[in-house]
Amino acid sequence: MTIYSPLLTDQYQLVMAYSYWQLNMAEQEAVFHLFFRRQPFAENFTIACGLGRVIDYIQNWRFSAADLDYLRSLTTAKNTALFSEPFLNYLSELRFNGEIDALPEGSLVFPNEPLLRIKAPILQCQILETALTNHMQFSTLIATKAAQICRAAAPDPVIEFGLRRAQGPDGGLMASRAAYIGGCEAVSNVLAGQYYDIPVRGTQAHSWVMAFPDELSAFEQFAQVMPANTTLLVDTYNTRQGVKNAITVGKKLQEQGQELQAVRLDSGDLLKLSLETRKMLDDAGFTTTKILASGDLDERIITQLKAQGAAIDIWGVGTKLCTSYDHPALDMVYKLGALKNSEQQWDYKIKLSDSPGKTTTPGIQQIRRYYQQGRLLADIVYDESSDIRNADFAIPYDSYEDLLVPIFRNGKLVYQSPSTTAMREFCLQQLHIYSASNSSNYAMQLETHIEHLRKNLMLEQQAKFGEN
Amino acid sequence: MTIYSPLLTDQYQLVMAYSYWQLNMAEQEAVFHLFFRRQPFAENFTIACGLGRVIDYIQNWRFSAADLDYLRSLTTAKNTALFSEPFLNYLSELRFNGEIDALPEGSLVFPNEPLLRIKAPILQCQILETALTNHMQFSTLIATKAAQICRAAAPDPVIEFGLRRAQGPDGGLMASRAAYIGGCEAVSNVLAGQYYDIPVRGTQAHSWVMAFPDELSAFEQFAQVMPANTTLLVDTYNTRQGVKNAITVGKKLQEQGQELQAVRLDSGDLLKLSLETRKMLDDAGFTTTKILASGDLDERIITQLKAQGAAIDIWGVGTKLCTSYDHPALDMVYKLGALKNSEQQWDYKIKLSDSPGKTTTPGIQQIRRYYQQGRLLADIVYDESSDIRNADFAIPYDSYEDLLVPIFRNGKLVYQSPSTTAMREFCLQQLHIYSASNSSNYAMQLETHIEHLRKNLMLEQQAKFGEN
Repeated sequence: MTIYSPLLTDQYQLVMAYSYWQLNMAEQEAVFHLFFRRQPFAENFTIACGLGRVIDYIQNWRFSAADLDYLRSLTTAKNTALFSEPFLNYLSELRFNGEIDALPEGSLVFPNEPLLRIKAPILQCQILETALTNHMQFSTLIATKAAQICRAAAPDPVIEFGLRRAQGPDGGLMASRAAYIGGCEAVSNVLAGQYYDIPVRGTQAHSWVMAFPDELSAFEQFAQVMPANTTLLVDTYNTRQGVKNAITVGKKLQEQGQELQAVRLDSGDLLKLSLETRKMLDDAGFTTTKILASGDLDERIITQLKAQGAAIDIWGVGTKLCTSYDHPALDMVYKLGALKNSEQQWDYKIKLSDSPGKTTTPGIQQIRRYYQQGRLLADIVYDESSDIRNADFAIPYDSYEDLLVPIFRNGKLVYQSPSTTAMREFCLQQLHIYSASNSSNYAMQLETHIEHLRKNLMLEQQAKFGEN
Repeated sequence: MTIYSPLLTDQYQLVMAYSYWQLNMAEQEAVFHLFFRRQPFAENFTIACGLGRVIDYIQNWRFSAADLDYLRSLTTAKNTALFSEPFLNYLSELRFNGEIDALPEGSLVFPNEPLLRIKAPILQCQILETALTNHMQFSTLIATKAAQICRAAAPDPVIEFGLRRAQGPDGGLMASRAAYIGGCEAVSNVLAGQYYDIPVRGTQAHSWVMAFPDELSAFEQFAQVMPANTTLLVDTYNTRQGVKNAITVGKKLQEQGQELQAVRLDSGDLLKLSLETRKMLDDAGFTTTKILASGDLDERIITQLKAQGAAIDIWGVGTKLCTSYDHPALDMVYKLGALKNSEQQWDYKIKLSDSPGKTTTPGIQQIRRYYQQGRLLADIVYDESSDIRNADFAIPYDSYEDLLVPIFRNGKLVYQSPSTTAMREFCLQQLHIYSASNSSNYAMQLETHIEHLRKNLMLEQQAKFGEN
């Protein structure tokens, strides 16, 4: 099974692709943008993520003989072949030959800003829509959730523990990658460690404790074979007794020149239990032994526990992080901005909506971010075919940068991906800028030219339906 | 990239596996059960799903040289190698050699009933925990969500449209599979169609309509090249005008002996728009043209729209289904029930909890389901090592069956998986039994022997902590 398959798409994309091909429109160049409309969580930021997976996908994107055989087997409602042989032949030779520009992973991004822009033959743009949206929306969602959780826990580290409750194996793999980029210190997912060079960490399960005649011998045996890796899970039967047993084992470890690294609380009243546990550990001289807490945590519960003074040093977060439990999908969309006509001119495109927020922005978009003394000043979305008129932007600024960077040109990768760790560091820097900027109402603005274009296209379309 | 990797596990599983191996406990036979504690949705049923994926996973489960190289690179907090060479050598030869029993996919299942039981060396049980839980919990969640949505829409068909908002590519693939088993008529996900032989279906995107000078020519061109596949999306600019244009094109299709199959509404007030659209279609003689609705639908909205008399014939459901938006993870757990001691006797195991609902059930469990006149009468969970005492069950019954069926014996697959379509049919039959049974409070019961066992183990453990 490979998740790189070009069949990772909605059936209508292939139907539209075939229709474009029949109408000789397949190679007409189009520009699509991938963006979202609303901030998913309480804090006003989103972290762009998923580009590395998109790059892998695009580089592996080709129709195999088995894929074409499957497409050949599909039929219409009238039981005729859905696709013709010449079209399948066209697909067999298809390779991505367009341009992609995108935000580096870990970038701050705001609603209605393109995270990714694709300029390619419309047939390719259409088939790729589903996979690009899928990869970017989920990675961005989880990196953002992780960043919100890590900010709540800061300066304490957060470890991602969610694989078993993730939405499938790859849902877990992508979530671990994004959670690390968004700020987690490590993950429990070993496959993510192998694939993405992410630190992996783990403790001990209740089943370990249950496999021995009693908890004390379970702890003793574990400490004996894992003296350099001694986090003990203390709540299998009774937490107070568990901490006592951990202390007993901790003393033996000390005699051998080792130390009891941490105890883990995984249930019950974490505030009360952490304070009791801290006192018991301190009274026994284990002042450097840490307390790791887990069990249905998210940014709200962590904030609350910290405000109440819980004695927790390390936070293990699973389900609520890796499924983004309170907001399990980002409203990411992929919309046509422009299409080259037969005179090789760009026609700018708009989709109207009864909800004004859903009317799209036309053009070939780029985001220019302005800074003043290291703070966010403004994000201006402009059309690359027009020169941005900085004069329109009256507030003084120190510097600016264009955020979308070239990833593919003529179908070739022109971007050197940083390591996953470098992405995480970049994300932490971005969040530092966000914090310095007092950005709770920060939002993108449209540059004047593109805004006029959008208004004119809206009026033009609305005029057609004036009588309705 | 393969998602069959044995590294699809939490790091602590490998640490515990290594510890068992060092203590010569690796081959000690254990029994674990996979179950959930609470019904996730409004209706009191859950649909077991995911076994097919588990079978594929177990059959591909082996540590490759690259996996072992990665494990060799891991270090402890003290920067020493985490795993020894003899242990890595042991892993290199490891194959699953135990037993698995499970519920067939599409089965009705209730809280605290085992969906899957594994009897194998404890090291194998432990390493497999994460992947087994991940596969079963997500598939079961989505099959159940789909069944709830399909029951709300019945007798209208539901099509799953969620790939782009799924939690990763494989999250989408698994969701499509489970949604079909749970009752959807088709999915949009082409890869799911290829892998699992599921019908795929699609319509048309807004970008198609935007790619032409106006909507009417977009519809005309589509109907020209796809005369046997004419569902037209009518809300790109203005729904009333869209329906008029669809009717214009429908008349041309009629002249060619074809028909306008459906129009699709994807935004706005679906009640009002569907009624207006139905009237316009009927007035123009298109009484057999169907109306497909999509856009943020779930079982609650569908129930409401149907109660209000919306003129919708086909329901396209995406994000809310494939992420199980209102409940994105099932609380599935994997708990030790028994462990063979050095005398080759089973020691029964229990985990206590401050929340009484979280105390586990010991034993080697099987579910016996009793029927009376085709209705559910009782589900009794019993210990396979004891004869179930039917005399305990005083109500008259016609028949019973034991629900867990053999899947693996001595590591070999002994189960013939039905086709995905057969699983879907079985699920529909199961739901029919559920409906006939008036089962809103239906729940499993513990057989007397296992209940006594559980109580005794609880008392025994609690006695140890009496002074706390």
